Parts: sequence; structure tokens; C-alpha cells
Amino acid sequence: MPRPNRIGESRLSKAAAGRLSLYLRAIEHAISNGQERISSQELGQALSIRDAQVRRDLACLGTLGHPGIGYNPEKLRKPIRRALGIDREWPTVLVGVGNLARALLRYAGFRQQGFHIRWLFDSDPAKAGTSLDGVPILPAEQMEKILSGSGAELGLIAVPASAAQETADRLIRAGVRGLLNFAPVVLQLPPHVRLVSVDLTIQLEQLTFLLTSGTIISD
Amino acid sequence: MPRPNRIGESRLSKAAAGRLSLYLRAIEHAISNGQERISSQELGQALSIRDAQVRRDLACLGTLGHPGIGYNPEKLRKPIRRALGIDREWPTVLVGVGNLARALLRYAGFRQQGFHIRWLFDSDPAKAGTSLDGVPILPAEQMEKILSGSGAELGLIAVPASAAQETADRLIRAGVRGLLNFAPVVLQLPPHVRLVSVDLTIQLEQLTFLLTSGTIISD
Repeated sequence: MPRPNRIGESRLSKAAAGRLSLYLRAIEHAISNGQERISSQELGQALSIRDAQVRRDLACLGTLGHPGIGYNPEKLRKPIRRALGIDREWPTVLVGVGNLARALLRYAGFRQQGFHIRWLFDSDPAKAGTSLDGVPILPAEQMEKILSGSGAELGLIAVPASAAQETADRLIRAGVRGLLNFAPVVLQLPPHVRLVSVDLTIQLEQLTFLLTSGTIISD
Repeated sequence: MPRPNRIGESRLSKAAAGRLSLYLRAIEHAISNGQERISSQELGQALSIRDAQVRRDLACLGTLGHPGIGYNPEKLRKPIRRALGIDREWPTVLVGVGNLARALLRYAGFRQQGFHIRWLFDSDPAKAGTSLDGVPILPAEQMEKILSGSGAELGLIAVPASAAQETADRLIRAGVRGLLNFAPVVLQLPPHVRLVSVDLTIQLEQLTFLLTSGTIISD
């Protein structure tokens, strides 16, 4: 039996982290259906991957199923949530209050998984002072002052490309250490800050690449 | 000198496609600045990757720079756009007219790169018959009928999770072969259809994974 790794030492890749999110979804679905067992085959089918891959990923968490019986979904849920870091709340800031921000704020999945958008900032003086869905919109130029000591950890950047680097710099000065960037720009960040970029043009270009260039050798 | 591959035979991975998008961005920036040369070092710096990787990726396109001189950004632009499939327009459908759809419709980057959202669909009878930014909102239940023979190729799915599979099925029956899915659900699709998923909860979970689990071995 392989020694369960501590997560900090694990060999889980970023791609595996993406799979963990999808396993979690399938598992939570199974729990809400009252299912008491879930097999690696079922999990593999839900993700269109092989069950051997599922077992490898879950073994990295020290979570071994029983051959021929499968996994207990309740018991699987906890180590996956822990590995993903969503076994706790993440106080989150959102900067740039446009349509995307409205969509993000109302996105049910965020709140469910512990992402709590507590602060909204905008540089438009007409917006600052108002609120959206009960969350006050604050003036962007006071970001460092307002957030300092607030415990804000994650920042969602939904400003135009031209303002994204400045927004990132301010968030980092205010103590934020994880950024989800929606602006189509490559950010320069200090090494302690983690970044995930959601560049929608790039996602669409990936799609047209797949439709145009055919064979994909690796992922 | 390596034989330039035809794109259809190339070994470009999906990750490389993502880098091509970023090179293209840096190159278009250089062109708009009137720069006549761009080096693999500059391109590597813009993406925080090594210049050897840049040269390898670009060699796959048959686009070889001149050692010590660099690339002509105008000449680099065209094969990259061709490889990404954005050397032409992609008639695009958007289903589900909420805040996300508004953000997508107004997203300047899409139009710029040839993605033209020509049809909006919504299942809400109160929305159908109106329009958004000059694009008419059509009734979702008539999707196949309206789109059949229209030349629609790409579909953006911005409906709630519960309606996503049905929306995908309808789009595919109407001839769409590339889907960008924003709903947090794994879609079951026929093999000829290409899918890119933008699941925002998963993106945030990747971020908290990076902040929590530390060391990433591979990408």
C-alpha cells in the first residue's frame, strides 16, 4: 500500500487539481442523491477519463477505495476539499464593477465552495458609495488603506486591461496573495503571489485551434 | 533546417496553443508600437518562459527567426493567426442572456479576433423578441430551426447548469461544432464536437490549491 503523502509534499499537478474539482462535483452530486458508494469507473465516466487515473489521483490524497466496492462519497469529500484548500472560507475582493463583476457576484458556485466576495472596488466615483447585492462598492484609490489588516486573501481582477497591473499591485500591497485575472494582459507579480488567468479570448482561440489544427498530441 | 510542418500534422499541444495566443498578443503590441524586430528573448520574457521554448513553438509553424536579429512581427502574425484558426471570421451563437452574456457581448477582444456573436438565444419569453447591443434575442426553443443553414459554428453556453446539456444538444443539432461552456457541468458530446470549458469555480479552486498545497510538479 503506498504511503499517503502529506498534501504539501504531494505530486499532484495543476491538471490533477482540475480533476479533483470535477471529482468533487460528481461526489457531491452522488451525496445529494443518497448514494453510499461511488466507484472509480463512475468517477472516470463523469470526467471521460480512465478509472486507473482516478485511482492514482485519489491515492495521492491517501484515500484508497476498496476493490470491487468503491469509495464512500462522504469520506472522499473531505480530503478533496482539503487538498483544494476549500475546507475553509476565503475572504475575496473583486475589483472593477461591470457586467462580469455582476455575473461573478451572483455566481452561486463561488459562495457554495467558500469564496465569499466581501469587498467591491471601482475607480468610477459614481459607483463608489453605492452597493451591489448588499456588498458596498468602495473607491479603488483607497484599496490599500481599506483592505490593510482586513484578512482579504483572494482578488478577482475584472478591470480593463490597461488598469490590471496597477490593480494587481494594489491588491498585493494590501496583502492579497492569490489573483484570478480576467483582464487580457500578462501580469508581472512577486514570487509569493499565485495567479490563475481566465482570458476569454485565449479560451476561444483554443477552441478554434482545436477545430482548425486537428490532432492534439498532449494536453 | 527542420521541415516546416503543415499545421494539420503538427505536434503543437493545447498548452502550446495557449502560448501562441500570448505570443500573438505580444506581437500585436510590438506592431502597434512600430517595432520592426522582436526577439525570442522578448517573447519569452512577456510570457515568463525560456526563449528556447519560444523558438521551438515558432519552428513548429515553419517560422524561423534569424539568430541575433529576431523575428519580423508582421511576418510572425500571419502563421500564428492561421494556426489558431483566427485568420477568418467565426459566426458565433450565445445562449443564455444574463450578466455573463452581457459581459461576453461587450468583450472587445472577441470581435477583434474574428469572433462575431450574431445570435442570442434565451428561454425566457420576456427576453425573446428584444435585443441587446443590436443583436436580437431569439427564443431558445426555436434554436435548431433558426440556426439550421445559418453557418453558425461556435456556441457559447451561458445558461444555468441544469439547462447546459440540452443547450449543447440543440446547438449541435443546429450544426455548431465548437462549444465554449461556462456552466459548471461536464457535457456529454459526440466525438466531432470540440469543447473548451470555463468553469469559474474550478479556476478559483486551482488558485486555492496553489495557495494551499504548495509545490506544483508539472503543469
